[in-house]
Amino acid sequence: MPELRKDPIVGRWVIISTERALRPNNFHADKEEPLTDLSKCPFEPGNEFSTPPEILAYRKPDSKPDEPGWWVRVIPNKYPALRIEGNINKHADGMYDVMNGIGAHEIIIETPNHNEEMALMPETQIKEVLWAWHDRIIDLARDKRLKYAMVFKNKGARAGATLQHPHSQIIALPVVPLHVQEELAGALQYYQYKDRCVFCDLIQQDLSDRKRVVEDTEHFISVVPFAQRFPFETWILPKQHESDYARTTRNDILELAGVLKHTLQRLRGALDDPPFNLVLHMSPLNTESLSHYHWHFEIMPRITHTAGFERGTGFYINPTIPEETAQFLREVQL
Amino acid sequence: MPELRKDPIVGRWVIISTERALRPNNFHADKEEPLTDLSKCPFEPGNEFSTPPEILAYRKPDSKPDEPGWWVRVIPNKYPALRIEGNINKHADGMYDVMNGIGAHEIIIETPNHNEEMALMPETQIKEVLWAWHDRIIDLARDKRLKYAMVFKNKGARAGATLQHPHSQIIALPVVPLHVQEELAGALQYYQYKDRCVFCDLIQQDLSDRKRVVEDTEHFISVVPFAQRFPFETWILPKQHESDYARTTRNDILELAGVLKHTLQRLRGALDDPPFNLVLHMSPLNTESLSHYHWHFEIMPRITHTAGFERGTGFYINPTIPEETAQFLREVQL
Repeated sequence: MPELRKDPIVGRWVIISTERALRPNNFHADKEEPLTDLSKCPFEPGNEFSTPPEILAYRKPDSKPDEPGWWVRVIPNKYPALRIEGNINKHADGMYDVMNGIGAHEIIIETPNHNEEMALMPETQIKEVLWAWHDRIIDLARDKRLKYAMVFKNKGARAGATLQHPHSQIIALPVVPLHVQEELAGALQYYQYKDRCVFCDLIQQDLSDRKRVVEDTEHFISVVPFAQRFPFETWILPKQHESDYARTTRNDILELAGVLKHTLQRLRGALDDPPFNLVLHMSPLNTESLSHYHWHFEIMPRITHTAGFERGTGFYINPTIPEETAQFLREVQL
Repeated sequence: MPELRKDPIVGRWVIISTERALRPNNFHADKEEPLTDLSKCPFEPGNEFSTPPEILAYRKPDSKPDEPGWWVRVIPNKYPALRIEGNINKHADGMYDVMNGIGAHEIIIETPNHNEEMALMPETQIKEVLWAWHDRIIDLARDKRLKYAMVFKNKGARAGATLQHPHSQIIALPVVPLHVQEELAGALQYYQYKDRCVFCDLIQQDLSDRKRVVEDTEHFISVVPFAQRFPFETWILPKQHESDYARTTRNDILELAGVLKHTLQRLRGALDDPPFNLVLHMSPLNTESLSHYHWHFEIMPRITHTAGFERGTGFYINPTIPEETAQFLREVQL
């Protein structure tokens, strides 16, 4: 059973994922392994037997579960960081706090096509992926032990991907993670002072001065954040206030798919297909709609190493000027 | 002039270091460049002219500044993330907060020998490096604009080092960085509740159950933290309560050099010379001695990639069991 351990100083939880069973003496750095023989890819149509049974699939009406015929398929991670079975069993280990690693760890296979990637998919396919994220969040919220669902995507080995086939992941946790707690607390403080959502305010400012805007549609905006941590970091936000991604409407999901595609295309064009992480930040599961918080995507290309300074301080050194990267992204030909 | 920008949501400061002048259209991923021709290394004795003039050096009595004869040499970073000249000039940019990037960015050249590394240096040489950190902290504290001095070391390209010659860095900042603020706040909360320092408590528990101890001398301990974030992450702490590294005594500095050397040797033996980051966490500059905070080194080998999940949540997934890594480190032959 994986274990959640709490740092007694800052209260940060860490997953000690013993089931992944990497022993110290056979520990090696992860490496990129480009797959030439697609029959070995566990995410290929026809290889459904090599994954755990599917949790959800969008598939042809006459096709059967765990067989081909799907265009998006969600499965449990075969090597999960957390386990869905069991009790949370919070307890002490002397001065330290521990709980069982209860949670969900799922893979969203985004397409049957191994060599496709999100920036190059048709918008209609990206839309299906966005629906899968949406549907899994709603289903996971039914498990009242789970407090947060984190959707994320690692593209490229340097961004932490171990399989090439386009996929994203959801990890649902029994605690709200520290970064999200910090965002919630900071946004609440701003709201209490100004009576406005800080994200709504930054959208307004960025729309009026336009210096950091990358994409701008009726309901969504993609911007380079003012205090950009990483070169080419880009966020996507709904213009209308909403804290819960799962409350996005049908028409908006299609529009969002377009904004996401164009943003990824621009990053791909600007940086020659960079590795990146994409994360979805939204309100915790089973909370009422929050006036002070605003869901958003954060896309973080991995083109520089973070070093001791960043690790030690939580401070970032960004060697690019955010407004220049925004302009550069706007000028990429789609 | 570099700029400090504040994230309006979580209050995290970011250094937009325009003077490093990487333009978006010539931005490339940093690469390891092993140096074969040592005459090109700016940190070699004889090449002192290729760095800015030294700030401090421990050198033979008859040698001159910026000439050979030194065994530790401190210089300003040629490509500093922050500038020491000018005014802080805090101001608003619409809803956003900005200040000039005032601060110091220094390099400590740890030895004249290009191919040495800290794990292999004599303890007496490591002691000299520890003195240089100490002396620079005391000098930087005289500049009342500076609130924090972060000592750190990046070893290996994957850990962010761009030069091989053994060196560490100090960045002194006009604000206390977020991670340190979090540690200070968490430790204060613990102190208010328990009337004890949380670091002293964890040292006591780890000394009594010994499961996570790596090195143990009269005045110092090196331990694997209970909620270890990264495989083989190891901390070094003074056993006696002290918040300020600059108050370490002469005899203790030599003992600390030994503990640091042995800890790095164990990591080197266990992981085949891993890239790592080392950071020194201590109380902010010009604060009185803090009862609730305790200076320490954090050593973080870089053998796994952090991915979208870690970036999005501040949660870490550690695929090793801390107590097993501690045992493994203890068993390395020195």
